[in-house]
Amino acid sequence: MDTDTTELDRVLAAAAGAAPKLAESTPAQRAEWLGAAADALDAASSELLPLAAKETHLPEAPRLKGELARTTFQLRLFGEVLTDGAFLGATVDHADADWPMGPRPDIRRAAVPIGPTLVFAAGNFPFAFSVAGGDTASALAAGCQVVLKAHPGHPELSARTGEILRTALIEAGAPEGIFAVIFGVEAGVTALKDPRIAAAAFTGSVPGGRALFDIAVARPTPIPFYGELGSVNPVVVTPGAVKARGAEVAKGYVGSFTLGGGQFCTKPGLLFLPEGHGLEDTLREAAGGVAGQTLLNERISAGFGKSVAKLREQPEVTVLAAGEATAEQFTPTLLSVRAADFLKADEVLRSECFGPASIVVTYSSQEELLDVLKQLEPGLTATVQAEESDIDEVRPLLPALTALAGRLLWNDWPTGVTVSWAQQHGGPYPATTAPTTTSVGTAAIERFLRPVAWQGFPDALLPPALQEGNPWNLPRRTDGDR
Amino acid sequence: MDTDTTELDRVLAAAAGAAPKLAESTPAQRAEWLGAAADALDAASSELLPLAAKETHLPEAPRLKGELARTTFQLRLFGEVLTDGAFLGATVDHADADWPMGPRPDIRRAAVPIGPTLVFAAGNFPFAFSVAGGDTASALAAGCQVVLKAHPGHPELSARTGEILRTALIEAGAPEGIFAVIFGVEAGVTALKDPRIAAAAFTGSVPGGRALFDIAVARPTPIPFYGELGSVNPVVVTPGAVKARGAEVAKGYVGSFTLGGGQFCTKPGLLFLPEGHGLEDTLREAAGGVAGQTLLNERISAGFGKSVAKLREQPEVTVLAAGEATAEQFTPTLLSVRAADFLKADEVLRSECFGPASIVVTYSSQEELLDVLKQLEPGLTATVQAEESDIDEVRPLLPALTALAGRLLWNDWPTGVTVSWAQQHGGPYPATTAPTTTSVGTAAIERFLRPVAWQGFPDALLPPALQEGNPWNLPRRTDGDR
Repeated sequence: MDTDTTELDRVLAAAAGAAPKLAESTPAQRAEWLGAAADALDAASSELLPLAAKETHLPEAPRLKGELARTTFQLRLFGEVLTDGAFLGATVDHADADWPMGPRPDIRRAAVPIGPTLVFAAGNFPFAFSVAGGDTASALAAGCQVVLKAHPGHPELSARTGEILRTALIEAGAPEGIFAVIFGVEAGVTALKDPRIAAAAFTGSVPGGRALFDIAVARPTPIPFYGELGSVNPVVVTPGAVKARGAEVAKGYVGSFTLGGGQFCTKPGLLFLPEGHGLEDTLREAAGGVAGQTLLNERISAGFGKSVAKLREQPEVTVLAAGEATAEQFTPTLLSVRAADFLKADEVLRSECFGPASIVVTYSSQEELLDVLKQLEPGLTATVQAEESDIDEVRPLLPALTALAGRLLWNDWPTGVTVSWAQQHGGPYPATTAPTTTSVGTAAIERFLRPVAWQGFPDALLPPALQEGNPWNLPRRTDGDR
Repeated sequence: MDTDTTELDRVLAAAAGAAPKLAESTPAQRAEWLGAAADALDAASSELLPLAAKETHLPEAPRLKGELARTTFQLRLFGEVLTDGAFLGATVDHADADWPMGPRPDIRRAAVPIGPTLVFAAGNFPFAFSVAGGDTASALAAGCQVVLKAHPGHPELSARTGEILRTALIEAGAPEGIFAVIFGVEAGVTALKDPRIAAAAFTGSVPGGRALFDIAVARPTPIPFYGELGSVNPVVVTPGAVKARGAEVAKGYVGSFTLGGGQFCTKPGLLFLPEGHGLEDTLREAAGGVAGQTLLNERISAGFGKSVAKLREQPEVTVLAAGEATAEQFTPTLLSVRAADFLKADEVLRSECFGPASIVVTYSSQEELLDVLKQLEPGLTATVQAEESDIDEVRPLLPALTALAGRLLWNDWPTGVTVSWAQQHGGPYPATTAPTTTSVGTAAIERFLRPVAWQGFPDALLPPALQEGNPWNLPRRTDGDR
């Protein structure tokens, strides 16, 4: 099943060969391609959903159905980005003899596709972060060819999704070579080292992502590597919130950390509660009410089993809910530790644990809470559960929370990640290897664009985005004015 | 003179300590700081210019005077970027129960400073790419602390510029720790590895930049490394241009590749002329008319001497102008090679040579020219010298030229790099280690910004950029609309 070297070379040659036609494609054309791909995937849902359920153990409804809807919505939203046109960053500076630093030539800048992009699919979202997921959608929107390394957790689904996507793109007018799926670790690594690949994107674990990042940056020609790795996603609960709606917070937390078997990169791994919160029974009950869940695959089950055992071994830890493992199903594990002990404990307590487990950290004072927050590893999200009346109490925490994460939430749970213009899914390492970027939301397209300036060019040789008459009617900055 | 470990630790601690005050600073305040810094540097020109001339052998006027004017203009232009406000990328998505993928929470996104930034100064532009240069200006504008590793080529100037810049910033209200200069390779490498440093920028040679890039990405927490390294900057001359104004092109070329002693990263290293161009004598004469130039320092002189010797050794090469080295001064070296031989020759002919030397490559056909262009190493610029009547002939070359460089020029020379909104100074590796960014122009600020999203936050806890009333009157995208 793995892609052999002959086939891989053919795929990479085809991707490189698509460059001239892609460079000529207009954003409007690419919006059509993405729309056609979304329609084709929606039309194939009755085939794809059972395949996904079989390979991932995730429930077909509402989970996988919702995820496929998210995926095709995402493709169409990037179509809107293309129609909008601001993503090109078109900027026109006319020649200016009086420019203060000395006469300025006519110079115009816009983005071009970075080139063939290698996307490593994730295992935990077989649609939204896999073959036709956000990395693929944003790279295709940018005008890049995509070589998709399938995740081994859902090979059949990957092959079928890839066929449907590829056929739809090409029937809509995209060039041959625009998209292909490859299989196998070796093919992925070989492709990552290939000079025809200009960028790579990845969603997955810290060790896996870091290994690939290391390969990408060690190439004779290093390339941008957009890795979305791990995150502990701390949640801070104020005494006010405990008092006003402690039970609701406790239940929401358990719901969030067990969602999808706790296999979300935004799973809340740490809940900071004030000492004496009195929610132990509620937490225990809520955790006890969650049925056993089958994890994505045996490797993840085995890893989770070991991680939980190691967490429970820590002497500082109290067990609130002892997860049980029966017939490959896991009920939630919930531990508790005092903040002062947490800081002294093994760093396993501060690391991401993939699966239905989480840790309550009890703090004795706002000062102690801030101290712990400052020492946490950064990640994708940081959440505050508080009352409106707590605003002055929360304000001093915000610099530390902002330093910690790419997305801050107020009275919500981090496991929901909407796809929109303002979304930010990223953060300081190890949330991502590229902290100035996002892997979800419309700004994800920026990762696959490279700016180019044209100086003194005749209008007939300028790309349409920069021609004097602005034939695409783009939003442009001209001579400094928006 | 080198910064010792105690002093370095003090500098890094001060930089980290400035974070809370910097996070509170408004763009308007930072614009004031930059303006004050520019004024202070302008006021010190009579002290700084002779110091620069003494340490770099570059002429005080017009060269260094112009460069200082460029540098202070650049600081003020980033002030305009701050006043404009678009750099924050403020985006507001209100809650939307009917969002097609499922109900959307209120989510708002804007950029925050990436954090303490280490800037490695260049040797060839002692003002514009050094202590108060573009990397420093754009990082300070973004709200980042800057630790500046001085270039060993102009230590006294670096120290004085640093004092003036730092004093002006702090007197204008910037926090202690916002800026410091450090000296010595060891201090630079130690700082690059320090967890308090969040990003780094560099302008210099490929080997030096790559070594630092390798350190930055090998850290336990890798950081963005914005390295502007090397470039051969090809120039293509059409038969039409040779016919219409060959002598002018030949003279312009010699002027450009010898400007500043050929020590510009945008020096045209390859001039593609049609075979039988008949410009040999003009080129020889133009090169012969350039007086001997003292290079920046002995290390560069020695390196240039060796490179030229190696270039001249290549059997495929004809010498048009044999540069002479006397008393550490160099007259220009100009070589010629046929395109067919160029492709087979040692890769030294295709690599950047820092100093007053360049190579004419003669092509026998448009097809051969395109073939060579496709095999060149990418860089910062690619230039076309052509007539308006050549447009249809040049069009097929543009995809290859665009793949080659971050800036394309028409009937101009690459050595002038204006600072403006549309400027792009970057390109595929080895032009830069970060091909989606620019190191010159207003977009350079983007390198030092990290996006953060706030989900469901009460207005009172949102940054002003995202508050519902838009108190800073920023350009914002709201619910998808610009």
